Parts: sequence; C-alpha cells; structure tokens
Amino acid sequence: MEYRYSERMAKMNGAATREILKLLTRPEIISFAGGFPATQCLPQKEVQEIAQELLSEGRATAVLQYGTTEGFSELREELIKYVKTAGIENIGLENTLVISGGQQGIDLMSKIFLDKGDAVLVENPTYLTALQIFDSYQANIVGVDADENGLVIEDLEKKIKEHHPKFLYCVSTFSNPTGKTYTVENRKAIAEITAKYGVMVLEDDPYSKLRFEGKWVPSIKSFDKAGNVVYLTSFSKVLSPGLRMGVAIGDKEVIRKMTIGKQGVDVTTSNLSQLIVCEYLKRGYLFPNIEKNMPIYRERKNAMIRAIKEYMPEEFSFINAEGGLFIWGGFNAPIDTTKLAPEAIKYDVAYIQGQVFYPKADVVNMIRLNFSNAPVDKIDAGIHRLGDMFKKEIAKVK
Amino acid sequence: MEYRYSERMAKMNGAATREILKLLTRPEIISFAGGFPATQCLPQKEVQEIAQELLSEGRATAVLQYGTTEGFSELREELIKYVKTAGIENIGLENTLVISGGQQGIDLMSKIFLDKGDAVLVENPTYLTALQIFDSYQANIVGVDADENGLVIEDLEKKIKEHHPKFLYCVSTFSNPTGKTYTVENRKAIAEITAKYGVMVLEDDPYSKLRFEGKWVPSIKSFDKAGNVVYLTSFSKVLSPGLRMGVAIGDKEVIRKMTIGKQGVDVTTSNLSQLIVCEYLKRGYLFPNIEKNMPIYRERKNAMIRAIKEYMPEEFSFINAEGGLFIWGGFNAPIDTTKLAPEAIKYDVAYIQGQVFYPKADVVNMIRLNFSNAPVDKIDAGIHRLGDMFKKEIAKVK
Repeated sequence: MEYRYSERMAKMNGAATREILKLLTRPEIISFAGGFPATQCLPQKEVQEIAQELLSEGRATAVLQYGTTEGFSELREELIKYVKTAGIENIGLENTLVISGGQQGIDLMSKIFLDKGDAVLVENPTYLTALQIFDSYQANIVGVDADENGLVIEDLEKKIKEHHPKFLYCVSTFSNPTGKTYTVENRKAIAEITAKYGVMVLEDDPYSKLRFEGKWVPSIKSFDKAGNVVYLTSFSKVLSPGLRMGVAIGDKEVIRKMTIGKQGVDVTTSNLSQLIVCEYLKRGYLFPNIEKNMPIYRERKNAMIRAIKEYMPEEFSFINAEGGLFIWGGFNAPIDTTKLAPEAIKYDVAYIQGQVFYPKADVVNMIRLNFSNAPVDKIDAGIHRLGDMFKKEIAKVK
Repeated sequence: MEYRYSERMAKMNGAATREILKLLTRPEIISFAGGFPATQCLPQKEVQEIAQELLSEGRATAVLQYGTTEGFSELREELIKYVKTAGIENIGLENTLVISGGQQGIDLMSKIFLDKGDAVLVENPTYLTALQIFDSYQANIVGVDADENGLVIEDLEKKIKEHHPKFLYCVSTFSNPTGKTYTVENRKAIAEITAKYGVMVLEDDPYSKLRFEGKWVPSIKSFDKAGNVVYLTSFSKVLSPGLRMGVAIGDKEVIRKMTIGKQGVDVTTSNLSQLIVCEYLKRGYLFPNIEKNMPIYRERKNAMIRAIKEYMPEEFSFINAEGGLFIWGGFNAPIDTTKLAPEAIKYDVAYIQGQVFYPKADVVNMIRLNFSNAPVDKIDAGIHRLGDMFKKEIAKVK
C-alpha cells in the first residue's frame, strides 16, 4: 500500500540525531550526545514514598480516575508558588496549565498560533526539537542573531518588522545548545519590543534551577506587562524526565486556548505524575535535592572544561556555561562536525553536531557536549578521544 | 493584547459539552453525561503493589530517567500478546507504539495523514472528541450511514469515491455513542473495500473488553491484508483512565511516522504509567479484574434499561448495547435535546445531547446516557427525573 501522508510529514524525518543515538547502544561508547539528568540524582526514595501514599486506599481514586485537562488545582497552587522562583508573581489558577513535559507546551503554543507559512523567530541556534515542532506546523522559522548578552535587539526588531512573526521562541537561561544566559537588560528589552509589536514570546525554561555559579536572573515573563509571554518550565531536569511533567504560565485567554488544544491531544497529564510532583513540591523536597545535586553537576562540568583545555585542539573554542547541561563549542578551522559524528563513534565517543540546532542548518563547525550524565573519569577519557580525533582531522585540513 | 490565533482555533471551542459538565459540580446532580469507568472497579491495591516494586531501589532508574518514544520493549511485548484478544496476530515491536491514552492515537493519525481540507470518513454519529481532533486539522469530516450491522457498505463506497478520504475512523465495538457492534461480515467488508481504494482505517477500540452479553467479534484489523488498518486500544476503561495509557498497532512504516509525530508531542508516555500497565498485564491481573467487574457494569446497564422502560415517554426508543458504557436513544417527536440539556440540570440530572456526535450537528432528537459511573439506585432516580422532564416536554409539543 502506498501511504498518502500529510504534507507536514515531508519535513519530519525523526530526530536528525537518531542515527547517532542508535549507535550508542555499545557499552564502550562514552556519550556526550543526550540531555539526560544525572541518573544518580533522580530521587528514587522520595518518589517511592509519595507514590505509596498516593495509591493508598482512600486516596487512589484521584490517581486512577479521570481528571480535568487543566490539571489538579492542588498542583497548580504549588506551581504558582514554584514559578515565583523565576520572578513570576500575581498569577492564578486560570494562568496555569499542567503539561506532559515542557515540550508539550511548545506543541500547544504552535497549535494555537501557527498556520502554515507563519513566521516564528528563534535564537540562532536553538533547541533542536523546537525546530522540529515548528516544522511540523509548516512554519517559516527565522533565526535571530545572539551575542554574549542574549538576543541582538536590533536584529530582533528588524526580523519582527520583516516577518510579522506569531511568536519568538527562546531558552533564556542556560540555553540549549549554547549554555548562554540572557542578561536582565536583554530580557527587559525582549519583553518590551515584542509587546510593542504584538508578538508573543514563548520562554522555555527547563534549566534555570541547575545553576553552578553566577547570579540568579528573573524570567522574561516577569517583565511581561502586555500578557504576551508564555513561560514554560519542566520537572525533567530537576526531578525526573520519566514522569513527563511541566507547566505553562500565561495570559488566561491564551492558557484557555492551550487547554482546548490539550483536550484533543492527551486529555490530561498522567494523574500519578501530577500528584507525585505536587507532593514533592509540598513536602519541600525539590530545592534541598537540587542543592544536594549541584556539586555533582558542577564537578562534571569542570571536569569537561579541564579536559577540553587539555585535549582539544587549539582551534576549538567554547562557552563556559554557568549552569544547565551543555558545553557548546566550535572550530576555527574547516571542520564539518556533521560528517565527523560517525567517525567519533569509531573512537567510542559521541557528540551532537551543531548543524541540527540552526534553522537553516548552515553552520557545520560546532558541537554540543553534554556533561551531566557521565562520571568524571568517563568525561576525561571521552574528551581525550574526541581531542585525538579532531586533532587528526585538523592536521588533514591544514 | 489582541491575540492572532491560528485558523484551526476558530473551530475549536472546547468540548461542546463543557458548559453542561461545569454544572455537574453540584453534588445532588445525577450525571449520565461522562464516560467514566466505575470508580469502585479501579484496581487500587494491585497498582499500589506494582508501583511500590517499580520504585524500589535498583528498579527505579527505568521509571525516572528518559525512555524511548516507542515505549518500553518489555511493555510492547505484553501489548502484542494483549491484542491477540482482538484477533490481531503476527505483529512485532515495529508494529507497536505506546501512546498516552487511545485519544493520542487519533491525534497522531491525523498529524501524519491530514492536510487542511482532506476528507475523513466517520460513522454517523461518532465519538465527539474525534470530531474535535479532525476539526483541529481542518479536515472535511464526512459521515457514513450506519445500520444494525455496522457501516452501510454501499454508502461507504459511495463516499470513498466521492471524497477520496485519507482515512475512515470508527469505533467498531460498543460504539461511542451508539453502543452498536459491527458484525463480522461488516468488518470484513470494511477491510476489503478500504484496501481496494487505498483508504486507511483508524479502528478505535476502547470498549470491546467490557462485554456483558453476546459473542466476541474479531477486530477489523484482524482482516487487514493490505496494511491499511491502524488499531487503537486504551487502558482507560479496563484499568485506569488516570494513567493515560494506550497502544497503536499498524504497518511498521505508519507506526514509524506516528512515532516521529509523538517525538514532537510529548516525547514519551509517562514511564510509570507504562511500567504499571506492563506489570499489570504480566501478572495476569487484567482479565480476572474485568471478569470481577462485569457483573457491576451489567447490573447498572440493566438498571438503566429497566428505568428507561418504566419512566421514559413511549416516544423514546433506544439501542440495548451488549457492552461498553452507553445507551443511545432518541425521540420520535420534535424534541430538541440540545436545548433541553440545561433544563435537565434543573431536574438535577445530566445527559449529553446527541447533536455533538454528528459531524454536521444536524440531528437534535438523540441523547447519550452513561450507565457505568452511578449506582443502581441513582440510575433509577436519575432516569425517573429525565422521564418526568421529557414527558412534560412531549406534552407541550403534542
């Protein structure tokens, strides 16, 4: 049978990184390719304790029966308190939608705003799967230049005028893939200029709680006066990705539309996941656990920086992120990291080629390295292997 | 701020039944409006036992860390065995995608096949939320006539020729809303004629395990020789809706495309939900539990039939379903059940107006009554109230 797929599927070939990820099943490979939280940081004991109580007689009905699409009110009350830690104040239940992981927020935002051909602005480069989602809505994805302060505001304004985008998508703190954090001034300017032109902002914040150094910054959402910013956060990196739990915060009209969108997608987020996160927040487990885990992440990041300095060729430069999961770097040499990704596998080490994070796929000399999910000795050994390979490649092109 | 929503949102106003459902918070109201399984049938003890073990040290990593979009292989092996009970044989892991409730399968099928304006055929009437999902993809929804055997094959062929639909959607066993079951001959004919014209079938089967009487029938999928049938089933009615767990079975190429679609929607289904269902199946809890529960459902259904016969006006006729959750009936009189739904609330009773199940919303004399989620005495009292109201209304229009 010849299947007559929708037009949108032409651009949807699965994660561009899938072929690499498939090769990672060999146990000798050291992978810097994923974005997993450190397995040892997942709070097994606390989740077990909570699940046990939630499923006890008399309490289990809420878990097992249907719930509402918006999510449990009890949980949303906790989430309202939680997002105060991103500087978000004065919101109510009607501004709060429980989602099945932060990524569902990107999909729902796209569903309610994007028609085929509509423009979406993104930081150039940005989160790979966000690009894939916008592709699935057949959007016109336009990259905005970024510098060490965040987005280049002049370029943002220019692209807004030129493309009349429905929204701007950005990961403002410890960006994926670059690890960069926008300055407070940059955040204010983004909130102002998008409001001025009636452009929505989708601020995706999965990483801000994973800060190893530097100073806290408020979210772009905290500077939103026009109701044009939707803020997403997720419990995938700070609690557990397997639970698939996140939250969208926005103007009540927009949240209502996203809720209608969610009704047709998965009805509700798993009740058990919702109530586990609810209790985890209520019992005050989250922040002590993050604090306990940060030394592990910090140590791994530092180990990677140390190894890069020791083993990578001098043509490689990188951004030393203050938090998050990634080191982003590139070569001041004609090195095609997409072509070399399979070569790295021969050295028993994996990275993600930078090309996949660019809407135009027009940059080939960058790589993203994840440091959160490998112990220090593996990080050292893996970067050593990568360094050997890239040095050899650079010798070839010199 | 004036929000510039996508075109698809114009048709998405939330569940049409939402206004009614909102009124149901008053405890004195007896509701026949939902589609909830009986709360007392939810297997609290078994799920608690399984969750406790899954979250024990040494096993919890699989639950808490990221999983693959396809779902756990271990679970998919169990699901392959499970769908044999629908007559589906000779399938492998590559034919099997874990989904976050059966409804996600409708969304993913739409995502991979439907462009704006594409035709979808549905039984007339059909599942309300399926209509809303097809609307969200701006499809042209075309109703196919049905009779006591299932779909009218001549009408199906006529509509296929006329509209070149991408797929046919149907609930072949204990249909929502009608409660009808297609005959074996009808199923074979549907499989043949759709294959002949290269039309996909999306067979949605949330209810077939809830059989109180009559004989088992194999799924349409079991007659699929061309690879054009995708079969969905869900654990919402037989285990727990709160877990959000279902499965899609289809040709490996189609399942691969649905998997790519799911990557951009929610990445994976909650690991905890997946592994709870996996263990529930492995330990052989499912069928004994269904068997234990069927007398409760049967008793409630019979109580509703008895009450309808006693209290409803003689102008009301209905289908006596052999299973599922619903009784579907209508008036041989000019009664507008949409207009009367708020009136019923004044009588402290709720139903769903039939109109919302028709793609053209052109039939107003039908109602859907859910019997699964109220005890026998409430069913009697509720139908009594409904009967009083409808008798009064019929007296007015006579």
